[in-house]
Amino acid sequence: MADPTTSPPLTRASVQAARELIAPYVHHTPTLTNRTLTQIASTPRTSEELKRYRGDAGEWEHIENPASPKLRLWFKCENLQRVGAFKARGAFHALGRLLEEPGFERGRGVVTHSSGNHAQALSLAARTHDVPAYIVMPEISTPSKIAATKGYGSKVIFSGSTSVEREAVTAKIIEETGARLVPPYDHPDIVLGQGTLGLELQEDAARMMAQEEPDQEGGRCSFAAPVTKGGGAVGGKENKSQKKQKAGLDAILAPCGGGGMLSGVALSCEGTGIRVFGCEPSFQGADDAKRGYESGVRVEAVSSLTVADGLRTPLGRVPWHVIYERKLVGGFYSVGEREICDALRLVLERFKMVVEPSAAVPLAVALYNEDFRGMVEREAGPEGWDVGIVFSGGMDAVKPKTKLGNGDVLWTNMI
Amino acid sequence: MADPTTSPPLTRASVQAARELIAPYVHHTPTLTNRTLTQIASTPRTSEELKRYRGDAGEWEHIENPASPKLRLWFKCENLQRVGAFKARGAFHALGRLLEEPGFERGRGVVTHSSGNHAQALSLAARTHDVPAYIVMPEISTPSKIAATKGYGSKVIFSGSTSVEREAVTAKIIEETGARLVPPYDHPDIVLGQGTLGLELQEDAARMMAQEEPDQEGGRCSFAAPVTKGGGAVGGKENKSQKKQKAGLDAILAPCGGGGMLSGVALSCEGTGIRVFGCEPSFQGADDAKRGYESGVRVEAVSSLTVADGLRTPLGRVPWHVIYERKLVGGFYSVGEREICDALRLVLERFKMVVEPSAAVPLAVALYNEDFRGMVEREAGPEGWDVGIVFSGGMDAVKPKTKLGNGDVLWTNMI
Repeated sequence: MADPTTSPPLTRASVQAARELIAPYVHHTPTLTNRTLTQIASTPRTSEELKRYRGDAGEWEHIENPASPKLRLWFKCENLQRVGAFKARGAFHALGRLLEEPGFERGRGVVTHSSGNHAQALSLAARTHDVPAYIVMPEISTPSKIAATKGYGSKVIFSGSTSVEREAVTAKIIEETGARLVPPYDHPDIVLGQGTLGLELQEDAARMMAQEEPDQEGGRCSFAAPVTKGGGAVGGKENKSQKKQKAGLDAILAPCGGGGMLSGVALSCEGTGIRVFGCEPSFQGADDAKRGYESGVRVEAVSSLTVADGLRTPLGRVPWHVIYERKLVGGFYSVGEREICDALRLVLERFKMVVEPSAAVPLAVALYNEDFRGMVEREAGPEGWDVGIVFSGGMDAVKPKTKLGNGDVLWTNMI
Repeated sequence: MADPTTSPPLTRASVQAARELIAPYVHHTPTLTNRTLTQIASTPRTSEELKRYRGDAGEWEHIENPASPKLRLWFKCENLQRVGAFKARGAFHALGRLLEEPGFERGRGVVTHSSGNHAQALSLAARTHDVPAYIVMPEISTPSKIAATKGYGSKVIFSGSTSVEREAVTAKIIEETGARLVPPYDHPDIVLGQGTLGLELQEDAARMMAQEEPDQEGGRCSFAAPVTKGGGAVGGKENKSQKKQKAGLDAILAPCGGGGMLSGVALSCEGTGIRVFGCEPSFQGADDAKRGYESGVRVEAVSSLTVADGLRTPLGRVPWHVIYERKLVGGFYSVGEREICDALRLVLERFKMVVEPSAAVPLAVALYNEDFRGMVEREAGPEGWDVGIVFSGGMDAVKPKTKLGNGDVLWTNMI
């Protein structure tokens, strides 16, 4: 890994520079809207719905006046990113920066320990730049993930599943090969790379809003010229009926695991007035960033089996600096397992998008978290908020059955 | 239904007029690309892969030299259309035309018989225009489809499941209420409405191709200005490495059931030089349009339980006129159940899009039909073809198990 002390400063301008660096290698993914989800988000929940979640977080069942915010949702589809997740951005940026470093010896390669999307992302970036990659994975990793990582040409080395075991194996590889470590989130280059999605989301949403024509009661509005509409046009009309008098997002909700992406998105919004919030599962203490943020002390370990398996990671040091110390994130909201699964099902069935459970967490906050919804109602008033929602990644495989942490089974509910 | 004799002529200009009429009510859906699928399509199949399908269509296993076409795929995502399918276009157009008819009495309403997407599309259009809608559905329809149709405010009337029974109930409703029939595909207004997706696909693909920068060996290309990129940007780079020297599609592959959409797309391409092909399942004779086209006699009845349940319908008279008599469709290709399921799985797992089995049929043709692939190799040569693929609709629910016609189970393969 590039020495963090040589990394660019953690600023919006550095995120813009990162975007230039990775542009040839990653997708500018679409920003889309969905009428049904925007409508559900702008409808107060019934007392029956509030009770539905009592087995889970149990916080809402005694609320007598559910919040009534106006929310227009703009979805950043990183499930359509290369390797199916935003992780491609950070990996290409980190490797791109390494390649610019005078002392980097390409033939020695790069190494990381990961069983998830970061492993595939780094493998793809390494293959693209003809750099050897070593991926340390727990022996218990699913065969499909091992196969996918090997499929990108990386060398997979197995380890035990504790962090001590993984790090020992990684250290040994570094010693033997001279490979450079590219960690999944706790490094400025990773943070800046992931933040590039925030720039695209801001620009695309603002452009789509600007293209919306004023609503004519019962009237007809024509297509904007296709040259300026593109795929984004799905959003062009979705959110039109509640159009306010300024173009641009008011807030972005992003999932938070290690915090690399959340902190990058926060940097991408610095100085824009767009507020950024982190979203986490509450199950078994996976809301470590929320607890840390509210207590002022970073939580350094998490042991949760939440269905949002990409968010089981504790917040890293570099992200903590951006999120908490510089207060570039406005706060955190968490949701229970059932809320995540309900949001996931809506995305699959109504939005026709395949996303992983972790990616459904911000939508679950927008739809089901009464604290968030009440805050928007108070702060935004009748004009409402335009909220960017980060779909962080897709699912590797659509499984018939996923056993949830709380004992529910996800997919059989969907027959 | 508007009297077909008063319908606009079946021309590209009429499709353009239809687009104006429905613009306020339907989405301009995104056109996207996918590197993995384009790459698979441009890779000759191995003899092992060719053998895999012998239990199904069995046509390819003895081929010694698999075709080696260059295909760049452009996907029109009508799964992201309102009601989750292109059917919204035809329904809004047919109803819009009715509303312009001097003799139409809004209060008498509209009626159709359908258990599928057309029922929901007409229900949505009718609710939007405050027109009563009567939907005749077989008693054996799935509860979710009945609920969805009622959810749009339509009156659902049950019938037996044969066409004679459905038509009798429909006739009775027309007699009692004076409602006007809006058939699912066999009417010029429906054909013209569905054809609007073809215009968007042509324009968006051409625009995205024009924005691609020439490939620089090992070089870097910057993002195009976001204002002209939009969601389509996912495609901007996908297909770049094999860029040819003209911007625009060479062909479109569309699924064919009753043929309303295929014939509309064919009209949208008239005079453009873009060739249009129909795609069908071969299972139990569901390739009726292909057989009719090749024999010169329209096949009027189909009885197939293909997994592509939207394509079990025989070709209608109006579509037949456009497709066969005017030869605006260049030919048909069919695929077996296993090919459809393999394509569907690729879309879910690699493209992260939820589509219904019918929607995967054109992709299955592009990836697996050696006749089509050989034709492209011969006609396009090393330059290859840019091919539009119509994702006609999404799935209502992601089911853990779908029993296929040939005895396979779809979803359990996906664990």
